Amino acid sequence: MSTQITIKDIAKMLGISVSTVSRALKDHPDINPETKRQVKELSDKLNYSPNAIALSLRNRKTFQLGIIVPEIVHHFFSCVISGIEQVANEHGYNVIIMQSNESQEREISICKSLMNARIDGVLASVSKTTTDTSHFKQLLKAGVPMVFFDRIAGDLDTDRVIVDDFQAAYNAVKYMISTGCKSIAHLSAPQVLQIGQKRQLGYKQALIDSNIEVDPSLIIACDNQFDAMLVGKQLMERDDRPDGIFAVNDLTAAGALYAVKKAGLKVPEDVSICGFTDGLVSTITDPPLTTISQHGEQMGHIAAQLLLKRISSEDSNYPTVTEVINTELIVRGSTKSISI
Amino acid sequence: MSTQITIKDIAKMLGISVSTVSRALKDHPDINPETKRQVKELSDKLNYSPNAIALSLRNRKTFQLGIIVPEIVHHFFSCVISGIEQVANEHGYNVIIMQSNESQEREISICKSLMNARIDGVLASVSKTTTDTSHFKQLLKAGVPMVFFDRIAGDLDTDRVIVDDFQAAYNAVKYMISTGCKSIAHLSAPQVLQIGQKRQLGYKQALIDSNIEVDPSLIIACDNQFDAMLVGKQLMERDDRPDGIFAVNDLTAAGALYAVKKAGLKVPEDVSICGFTDGLVSTITDPPLTTISQHGEQMGHIAAQLLLKRISSEDSNYPTVTEVINTELIVRGSTKSISI
Repeated sequence: MSTQITIKDIAKMLGISVSTVSRALKDHPDINPETKRQVKELSDKLNYSPNAIALSLRNRKTFQLGIIVPEIVHHFFSCVISGIEQVANEHGYNVIIMQSNESQEREISICKSLMNARIDGVLASVSKTTTDTSHFKQLLKAGVPMVFFDRIAGDLDTDRVIVDDFQAAYNAVKYMISTGCKSIAHLSAPQVLQIGQKRQLGYKQALIDSNIEVDPSLIIACDNQFDAMLVGKQLMERDDRPDGIFAVNDLTAAGALYAVKKAGLKVPEDVSICGFTDGLVSTITDPPLTTISQHGEQMGHIAAQLLLKRISSEDSNYPTVTEVINTELIVRGSTKSISI
Repeated sequence: MSTQITIKDIAKMLGISVSTVSRALKDHPDINPETKRQVKELSDKLNYSPNAIALSLRNRKTFQLGIIVPEIVHHFFSCVISGIEQVANEHGYNVIIMQSNESQEREISICKSLMNARIDGVLASVSKTTTDTSHFKQLLKAGVPMVFFDRIAGDLDTDRVIVDDFQAAYNAVKYMISTGCKSIAHLSAPQVLQIGQKRQLGYKQALIDSNIEVDPSLIIACDNQFDAMLVGKQLMERDDRPDGIFAVNDLTAAGALYAVKKAGLKVPEDVSICGFTDGLVSTITDPPLTTISQHGEQMGHIAAQLLLKRISSEDSNYPTVTEVINTELIVRGSTKSISI
């Protein structure tokens, strides 16, 4: 390799800092125009093309990002990953994906191996069973930039992308009430997860604001298809059978739908059902599911952009941000229309 | 760190090779019992616990495996990954997953980054659009052990795990015929994929063996839910409407099912439908899908075992193997029963 002029050389020659040179070359607004002019003139003179600069910066980087997700089998996480990859690939980054399988132990092991991996940054969504976030803290301490998405580590000060789970659940349940539902059951996610808590709070608030009493026996911990088949059956056998089911995700809604139909009842005429996710499943059930779109791909875009910004920033200590993505209620055949 | 006895020291003291010591400690059948006894005696004497040995071996390894898959959103691939992870984790390996997104270009980029990654081996399933496998060849040349699963690179001599796609398709179509179907359409995968070819061949052979003429207009390239909704509609509008649809995967079958019901026809009374995969979707449709289980998790187990065997082997040149997993026809409500 030939001895190439480095960004350091330019800084030395002009008597300014390396970070000023770097930012001047990137046309950063904080750098004054005269400095920018000098830096550009000198780098041109030395035949310092932007490509050569990119290359010299690249030597410090691996252009590899890591994603830690609970389970890729969930359509929502595949969508987020897909969004992350689009942005990452556009910027020349490869992405490696690791599954915690909802296990804190696996998450710890993954973080340990990432400590040694040549990686520029990490995007993570926390496992259901994680009660202690020290393993993520260690990555941060080691200087690995991190962004959390959807399931965040509440006690860590990092960039985050979340959806407004409270509002999403609130809107869905309000909609069900507006179509005539008077007694709505909630199949809920574990309350250790913030998303589980917030969706349940949104459900409760919508009832309260509609003067419907919250019946604790209608809030059931159940977040998968097969449990929902059983829980749905039990609900349909009650004397005070509910006329609506708000499930914490689409698969759970699909299981409940199966149970309702199996009990000889009609969806949505007898029982309305609403899911959460807008995954593959929601258009495959009969009737298709009313559900909440979490805009997973968009979440991935934003998370990747936040991470790349932090990676390329000279100042890693600028304040962290939390981006909240608005959700959207997608009305399909599993709920009645408002006019009824 | 204290100066620890190495496997080399034991070899030197006994005047035998390092690989003999290593194999003796693993109780390898090729090593004679007397040598094994000597090695074990000496290693005991030197306080050389199996753990310390494992640790010294580990220094050469990263205990990280890479998986390259077309798309994690496919339930089948999530199952294979899950199977790989089970075996890998049991053996102390972490797994990183990379998606080609069915793009040869991405696959090349992933392989390049794996060349530099600290990784002990790679498991791969080839993208739909890959026409040249040089990027995989380079990994192999660089000494990275590889196992292909499901979608193999036919021109590379590696360990492989596949299912018998021909037989699986043959069995499914034969079954449909035995329930009374006389005219079966096939929604097929791209013929650049071996799985696409083999499933189509199995379909044709089942017709031929049942004295049903193969009608090329009933073989339609269509391998996703949304295209299948349209193709299914067109099929239902034909004067010579088929009474069966054999789809190359479950999502395609789900799309066809939607179209048939939308056309006012009954499944399975008017039209039988069979999928391929036995994914999440197959129990969510109404009626649930008759389909073929590819035993994805088992495929993952076997693929990981083959890879770990090759990684830990002293002789990397022992002959490659192809393991063929038997599929299973899972009969559900979308096909008639034989007695009808």
